[in-house]
Amino acid sequence: MSARPNLIAILGGTGAEGHGIALRLARAGHAIVIGSRSAESAASSAAAIGEATGSANVSGSGNLDAARRADVVILTVPYAAQMPLVREIKDALAGKVLVDATVPLMPPKVARVQLPQGGSAVASVQDFLGEGVRVVSAFQNVAACHLQDLGHAVDCDVLICGDDVAARQVVVDLARDMGLRGIHAGPIANSAAAEALTSLLIAINRRYKVPGGAGIRITGVTEDADDREVP
Amino acid sequence: MSARPNLIAILGGTGAEGHGIALRLARAGHAIVIGSRSAESAASSAAAIGEATGSANVSGSGNLDAARRADVVILTVPYAAQMPLVREIKDALAGKVLVDATVPLMPPKVARVQLPQGGSAVASVQDFLGEGVRVVSAFQNVAACHLQDLGHAVDCDVLICGDDVAARQVVVDLARDMGLRGIHAGPIANSAAAEALTSLLIAINRRYKVPGGAGIRITGVTEDADDREVP
Repeated sequence: MSARPNLIAILGGTGAEGHGIALRLARAGHAIVIGSRSAESAASSAAAIGEATGSANVSGSGNLDAARRADVVILTVPYAAQMPLVREIKDALAGKVLVDATVPLMPPKVARVQLPQGGSAVASVQDFLGEGVRVVSAFQNVAACHLQDLGHAVDCDVLICGDDVAARQVVVDLARDMGLRGIHAGPIANSAAAEALTSLLIAINRRYKVPGGAGIRITGVTEDADDREVP
Repeated sequence: MSARPNLIAILGGTGAEGHGIALRLARAGHAIVIGSRSAESAASSAAAIGEATGSANVSGSGNLDAARRADVVILTVPYAAQMPLVREIKDALAGKVLVDATVPLMPPKVARVQLPQGGSAVASVQDFLGEGVRVVSAFQNVAACHLQDLGHAVDCDVLICGDDVAARQVVVDLARDMGLRGIHAGPIANSAAAEALTSLLIAINRRYKVPGGAGIRITGVTEDADDREVP
């Protein structure tokens, strides 16, 4: 079991995916700060999450301020906003875990894999930030709509990639708190697969008309396999 | 429902993955020709498959001869052998469906995603062969060991990518005959995700010590969704 974060920032937390993650973490009792370009939007989103979950530990702020205050920062912004935001908050991330949920979708062809330079948008962030920030890739394949619907279990695993195993474990534990199974899936370079997979899920959603959005499950991993490793 | 192939060639059919695919197709009553660099090895492998499945429709041959005779050709060779073999059999593939199961693993770091030039090894084959051959990517995520064990159901979906929908449907039907669920997953460019995913599955196998090998399932797609589309 990893240390429980004191405060989790969710940047882009007013978007659909960030909102879903925030709802589930708040419901689990985590202290959350929603970050947004607009501190006002963040505060209003935070209030809605507080009301939906009954949590008194949800606040809102500008992205940079939210990143400064938190010890775990989750990034849930569109691809085009990812690197500009990372540059903006870089100094606030030193020594922290950055959980990046970015999917390099390039509209309009979002159902076709279009790999970014180097293959993984999240690995590029790790490269840019260097070893002083432990970047973990997660949540690329979990549909926002399922996350937001607190009344049902999400039928999707979370592929968790990162070069630092302890940082990955922080995210495995957060996923578990959200009602999801997190799976250690190797180094940050492996994020390329999880990112690309999202375009396949979009293609599958279109062809099979999947309500709420398709997801993935890893088979063969027993439910308690991860616990066995942790003392 | 697509047309049932008259003869399916499985090139590299003496390897573990090819052997597993051949076993399951032969058991389903398909006529199979195993291809190998050595016609002798192919014949001996074919005899073993015939014996294991009780099928009289399994023969062996050199790769080129097998490709010439078949109307659907399945490629199950190591990455390093893929393009050399495709060049060798190019003329025999005109007008046919080529099912490519190649995973661009680059030993020794097979649990780390290392994307090939362009992102997808199979898309490169489609580029090389041009429109005269309909290339379909499939079977990258199904562990050979599960395929070979005819006594149990394989808990893994098959992501099927290709630019030609009818050709994809041929492979969806073959997967069904093998006892697997094939999922239409978009254009051939999307094969990049299925190929990269194999390194994650290897990483997962190592960490969680998965017996026989982890697999994937797509959630949210109802079992009969594909049938609904086919008259």
